[in-house]
Amino acid sequence: MEPISLLVTLDQNYLPPLRVMLKSLFVNNPGEIFHIHMIHDAVPDKGIEQLDAYCRFHGARLFPYEADQNMFAGAPVFRYWSRSMYYRLLACRILPAALERALYLDPDILVINPVRALTETDLRQHLFAGAMHSGFTGNLKGQLNRIRLAYEADGYFNSGVLLMNLALQRKFIRAEELFAYVAKHKNELLLPDQDILNGLYGDRILPLDDSLYNYDARRFETYLFLSMGEKNMDWVMTNTVLLHFCGKAKPWYGNSRGRFGVLFKHYASLANRTLAETGSVYETAKF
Amino acid sequence: MEPISLLVTLDQNYLPPLRVMLKSLFVNNPGEIFHIHMIHDAVPDKGIEQLDAYCRFHGARLFPYEADQNMFAGAPVFRYWSRSMYYRLLACRILPAALERALYLDPDILVINPVRALTETDLRQHLFAGAMHSGFTGNLKGQLNRIRLAYEADGYFNSGVLLMNLALQRKFIRAEELFAYVAKHKNELLLPDQDILNGLYGDRILPLDDSLYNYDARRFETYLFLSMGEKNMDWVMTNTVLLHFCGKAKPWYGNSRGRFGVLFKHYASLANRTLAETGSVYETAKF
Repeated sequence: MEPISLLVTLDQNYLPPLRVMLKSLFVNNPGEIFHIHMIHDAVPDKGIEQLDAYCRFHGARLFPYEADQNMFAGAPVFRYWSRSMYYRLLACRILPAALERALYLDPDILVINPVRALTETDLRQHLFAGAMHSGFTGNLKGQLNRIRLAYEADGYFNSGVLLMNLALQRKFIRAEELFAYVAKHKNELLLPDQDILNGLYGDRILPLDDSLYNYDARRFETYLFLSMGEKNMDWVMTNTVLLHFCGKAKPWYGNSRGRFGVLFKHYASLANRTLAETGSVYETAKF
Repeated sequence: MEPISLLVTLDQNYLPPLRVMLKSLFVNNPGEIFHIHMIHDAVPDKGIEQLDAYCRFHGARLFPYEADQNMFAGAPVFRYWSRSMYYRLLACRILPAALERALYLDPDILVINPVRALTETDLRQHLFAGAMHSGFTGNLKGQLNRIRLAYEADGYFNSGVLLMNLALQRKFIRAEELFAYVAKHKNELLLPDQDILNGLYGDRILPLDDSLYNYDARRFETYLFLSMGEKNMDWVMTNTVLLHFCGKAKPWYGNSRGRFGVLFKHYASLANRTLAETGSVYETAKF
């Protein structure tokens, strides 16, 4: 089978959750070969080497790309947002030209079922596939975003999971356009990468079922209610592929809250053990 | 490294939880080779073949032994207890004579950390190593058992996890003695295998820390309280090796209850997927 290409973008603060996400990916996708493309902000060589050993231990390959700051010389930055918010949207300009698609994942995600069906989704003429978070506040949020960003689509896509049509993106996504959009809207942008994604490309995103591919781990009861009881814990464990720990209350802070915290902590423990077993010296930080 | 020998005893109704237990064992013990010794009650050949393929998929070997009913011809059975309650206590008479130790595990257990330190425990002159369930009711239960079974030890060992000193057991454990004990005490026995274990061999059991090796999944708050807050969820995920779903409310019934239900359901889903991938035809039952 063809290797599956993943994309992650981060600085070294996100290496610990990245290892947890990758551990869950590997455990739940036996028999798959993964190419992990990582666009990073100044992760030191030792950190790269450590992650490389961790990936090799699982039969995967790591492809690191340090973000070229020249590329972002004209990028507006403001408030507490850094240039790294652009990396996932400009990945098509950074990754090898031969790479036609990749699955971008935030590092605060657990992969709990096989990803191949998702990565083989027919993207047709869409630049991305992504999910909106369903729920009671969906319409309100949609309204708000329409006003805020003069945005015409029906919903608001979460940028934490994006299947990327890199081949097509190279034709349509231009850094200058992104920077101009940000410069124009900087006062309205709340979650810049997500707002840019929706504002500029919202109508070129293939909608995915969020209960499968971007399940908001805070909202078990919402999914259960909206599905009239079908999407209970058995359903989630059997069907959901990507469990997303959205929001500020990350499961690696403090005691586990929420139904899925124990699952995150279990994979964190597995990741920490593998880190120790692969003989790492750079970082032994645990959550 | 030496292979690690496990013992399980069951009939075909327990094959689904056994697969979940084994999946958790394999995922959490990468690099180990397991020999799974299974004493069973009439599991059909196709069931054995299916489990054999499942074990091979994980690099493990299955050694099935159908319980010889002649051996149990003189065994008292009563109420709803069958002869299978004797299998773990008489395993030393059934397993190959060369096998000197094995770790017996109930199938309602999740293995969430490496088992090697446990399986290499120095048993000295003990027949078993096992754990009592610590907690507020410990002493009361101890009192009750002293009265009920004229049992002099300080506590009551749970029989769900037993590290077995098979070499020494062959010198000291005799079927006739077990059967005589049961015949004499049949009116007092509540949990026969456990009562026999404690009544006959309670003073030959090396105590293990239950929070590590037989954590009662119903009692997170008890462990947390008794440890003055130390044994929180991070501690459990990092240190506990065997998580035991004691009691009647098994996590495979109905909706997940308790903090650890989601972990069981996740491993059940992993086990079901592997069952499908190993091309099984005998049984596709899910929880």
